[in-house]
Amino acid sequence: MKTVIIGAVAGGTSAAAKARRNAENAEIKIFDMDYDISYSGCGLPYYIGEEIGDRGDLTPRNAEFFKKKYNVDVFRRHEVLKINAEDKVLTIKNLDTNDIFNESYDKLVIATGAKPIVPNILGAEKSNVFYLRNVKQADKIKEYIQTHNPKSAVIVGTGFIGLEMTENLEDLGIKVTLVERLSQVTPGLDKDMSVYVERYLKSKDINMVLGDSVVELKGEALVKQVVLQSGKVIDADFVIMSIGVKPNVKLAEEAGIELGSNGSIKVNTKMMTNIEDIYACGDCAESYSVITKKPSYRPLGSTANKMGRIAGDQLSGGNLEFRGILGTGIFKIFDMTVAQTGLTEREAIGEGYEPVICHNIKPDKPEYYHGKEMVIKAIADKNTGKLLGVQIVGYTGVDKRIDVFITAITFGAKVEDLFHLDLAYAPPFSTTKDPVAYTGMILDNAINRGRELITPDELNKLINNGNDVTVIDARVNKQYEESHVDSAINIPHDQIRKKADKLDKEKIVITYCNKGVTGNAAQNILINKGFKKVYNISGGHKNYKEQIK
Amino acid sequence: MKTVIIGAVAGGTSAAAKARRNAENAEIKIFDMDYDISYSGCGLPYYIGEEIGDRGDLTPRNAEFFKKKYNVDVFRRHEVLKINAEDKVLTIKNLDTNDIFNESYDKLVIATGAKPIVPNILGAEKSNVFYLRNVKQADKIKEYIQTHNPKSAVIVGTGFIGLEMTENLEDLGIKVTLVERLSQVTPGLDKDMSVYVERYLKSKDINMVLGDSVVELKGEALVKQVVLQSGKVIDADFVIMSIGVKPNVKLAEEAGIELGSNGSIKVNTKMMTNIEDIYACGDCAESYSVITKKPSYRPLGSTANKMGRIAGDQLSGGNLEFRGILGTGIFKIFDMTVAQTGLTEREAIGEGYEPVICHNIKPDKPEYYHGKEMVIKAIADKNTGKLLGVQIVGYTGVDKRIDVFITAITFGAKVEDLFHLDLAYAPPFSTTKDPVAYTGMILDNAINRGRELITPDELNKLINNGNDVTVIDARVNKQYEESHVDSAINIPHDQIRKKADKLDKEKIVITYCNKGVTGNAAQNILINKGFKKVYNISGGHKNYKEQIK
Repeated sequence: MKTVIIGAVAGGTSAAAKARRNAENAEIKIFDMDYDISYSGCGLPYYIGEEIGDRGDLTPRNAEFFKKKYNVDVFRRHEVLKINAEDKVLTIKNLDTNDIFNESYDKLVIATGAKPIVPNILGAEKSNVFYLRNVKQADKIKEYIQTHNPKSAVIVGTGFIGLEMTENLEDLGIKVTLVERLSQVTPGLDKDMSVYVERYLKSKDINMVLGDSVVELKGEALVKQVVLQSGKVIDADFVIMSIGVKPNVKLAEEAGIELGSNGSIKVNTKMMTNIEDIYACGDCAESYSVITKKPSYRPLGSTANKMGRIAGDQLSGGNLEFRGILGTGIFKIFDMTVAQTGLTEREAIGEGYEPVICHNIKPDKPEYYHGKEMVIKAIADKNTGKLLGVQIVGYTGVDKRIDVFITAITFGAKVEDLFHLDLAYAPPFSTTKDPVAYTGMILDNAINRGRELITPDELNKLINNGNDVTVIDARVNKQYEESHVDSAINIPHDQIRKKADKLDKEKIVITYCNKGVTGNAAQNILINKGFKKVYNISGGHKNYKEQIK
Repeated sequence: MKTVIIGAVAGGTSAAAKARRNAENAEIKIFDMDYDISYSGCGLPYYIGEEIGDRGDLTPRNAEFFKKKYNVDVFRRHEVLKINAEDKVLTIKNLDTNDIFNESYDKLVIATGAKPIVPNILGAEKSNVFYLRNVKQADKIKEYIQTHNPKSAVIVGTGFIGLEMTENLEDLGIKVTLVERLSQVTPGLDKDMSVYVERYLKSKDINMVLGDSVVELKGEALVKQVVLQSGKVIDADFVIMSIGVKPNVKLAEEAGIELGSNGSIKVNTKMMTNIEDIYACGDCAESYSVITKKPSYRPLGSTANKMGRIAGDQLSGGNLEFRGILGTGIFKIFDMTVAQTGLTEREAIGEGYEPVICHNIKPDKPEYYHGKEMVIKAIADKNTGKLLGVQIVGYTGVDKRIDVFITAITFGAKVEDLFHLDLAYAPPFSTTKDPVAYTGMILDNAINRGRELITPDELNKLINNGNDVTVIDARVNKQYEESHVDSAINIPHDQIRKKADKLDKEKIVITYCNKGVTGNAAQNILINKGFKKVYNISGGHKNYKEQIK
């Protein structure tokens, strides 16, 4: 029994390790084109930013390690040129010696990963345009910074790599300008959540150009200026392109292996391709959604690890099967944490759900214990009450809440389940009712108990469509005077009981306070007094004023 | 419709708020004996330690707040003397005026809370013996510290209040000696986890006397010395008694209300007592276990909040029902976090489960990103594969992992489910495979894949019972030489493949490494080579040496 694996990063090495654990006597070989193997791709921005001082920390496992620990032979700098699936033979080139040889296999694992998307623009090939994907590329960026002492950089793309690089370059004293094709940063978030990230980036004095694309990278040998579609020109001592990756599938495609979403390799839950005895895993392989069960392509180290383990288990007689992903993502930028899982609002609508939205603004701990506010946007299905997705922007405790939501969604949680969780409470860790529980209560109230919410966007549409709406600002007069929803009247919460009877109970009424709690209290009073249609603004005025510029 | 609530802390005020949300026109009154209402009991140690500077932070909501926001009348310093359940009338005394009056109700909520256990020992009544339960008592401790400038304190009991007080007093420069009746600290943990807390307390130079009880508190007006059962005498400038609480049920009992576990008020899932229209919630009420469904008494602010909301909902026509607790607890002491949920090993055995145990020692983040190790003890049911309980001791990221486990256990997770969770991964937050996923993998391997674990205790029993066992230390020779399991031979992992055939395959073999991973790799090799019974030491030598003194 001989297993050959193409690719020695997360997916390939996980497959090898698991295959060995199951079968002591199998022959296992891994071939990889790169110099470095089994590295932490997600650590690269922190290596550049010198948060990680030692390059060795990124590549803790070398070929010798795999030989000693797993009796697996890893061949670096070896390119697989061809898969002959019929004869089960690979053609391989040693990139150091240029020798070409054949290697047979009984089971083959394709873990060829992904590569950065290189845009088709003038200057994209210049040596100070960087694409961060492997340790070599990180080395090049570090070397460039050390030798050229750059003062400014343009980062194209505002996904997690773009924003992590922003932090790390700024920490080195390099002034960053972000360029994003979309009209928002962080494409993984809905627009109403990305505004919180944008405000924070502004507060950190990060330049942002949104809704614009790079058309040319100008300069002699080196790029000096970035020219945008709009005509805008940005001076830059170097450029980092982080506009996404695409799967490395040339080999697979030429061997007749079927491709799936985004051109990744189609696999079943056993990580098998359409050709017998050929498996694929990691960033070259297709994934699928836990929620919709539909194929998706969301390459990530943690997913690659899972897929690799499953491929390794299956090819050595195991029964582990892939259960899909939620499309979880998390990143830190300076002190802010941004996380998301499951479907966004726009994805939920696209999938035909009738989403119910809430924005829950809560501190992660009691304010007396240094709690900091986070904004949780949660999306649930009106018909089943199931949670579909969550986005969180905050400072501390965000990673905890997203992981709790992830676990709940994975087990098919309904919104009313969250309140009942016996989550760990003590002042250094949480509020008496955790933000997760509050989120469940708000959505339960909205879906099952007639306390409906309205997002700032929906409210504006309602008003712009000419609906006759009573908008009640339930805050104290001082807050109302400072800033309020355009058409709002001010009835502080403690006066609503008295004044409600003078209002038209048949009209649509919108309530709001600062973050939503008192707005909900006002809503309760009105509904209990017989008002027909009362909506509370999701996230209150604090959220509203972020959305309406 | 008139609702009367006895008690205005977590349970009572939650009940009032929810009842009002459901019914605008009901009359709602709360009577409480205390000066302070709706306070954060869990914040008291931090108020004493001056982490919380402003007393008002502990009591953000006063009677005026409840009147304005909820139209609820709160009467402080009013003691309910008697419940006349037949006529639905309360006899109440105004503690300021000594007036006694009657108050009728349609629905009654008993939220009388709990009180500290006062031991029956000489000197327990002296004025420098403190019982931390409410804000007044915290005030007294603060005042004593300010006026007497104490240098030393004895804290009796090592539950979370005892240990939180230890941190807060030490931070004030007061030398603490802990006295604990049991042979371990932190009674909520199994003994094999409490040793990690004890080692940490020692490293912080905290005096601990375990397995000993206080028999007398000596001194003239003030306690000066604490005399223990063993004859030991400890000098102390004051004493804090934190040996647990018991429910305040005198009123309920006299009214003929049935009591349950630990003398708390028996309630159904609707928080109804055995007498119609009388509800109970909070620290005076009985709870029950999500896992065993059996009654239990675990008073906690977060549970009191849930119960109160449910009582308030039910009495005003709602349908919310209590789903029980996992018995979750968490506390911080200096930089250490200790958390636990579900059943301990001893509870699991007591309930008739056949528990499978693992100790998983992992950093919360990559070591290159300042990750710190935590020890996760997880307990699963061998027959169903379901998780029963988890205990974690560590420094950062402990609260996140316990909350993920809590969520998983609540939804009936089996050990094999944890690996599949698409938890949020980026170096500042987690390792590629989260410690939760690893825990699931270890237990899945043990329960479903024949990779059984043995705890240090079990190993010692095995050897002491005269079993002929081969113990293999799979670490490098240098580590073996430093310290190893008594009877162990050293076969470094990379030599096991060669040397295995010289060992007796019929004998019981124990493998171990430093923390468990390489021990598992050695175990895999031996099992794949035909060894019949191979066990890996749970938590490896790192755990073993903590357990064996």
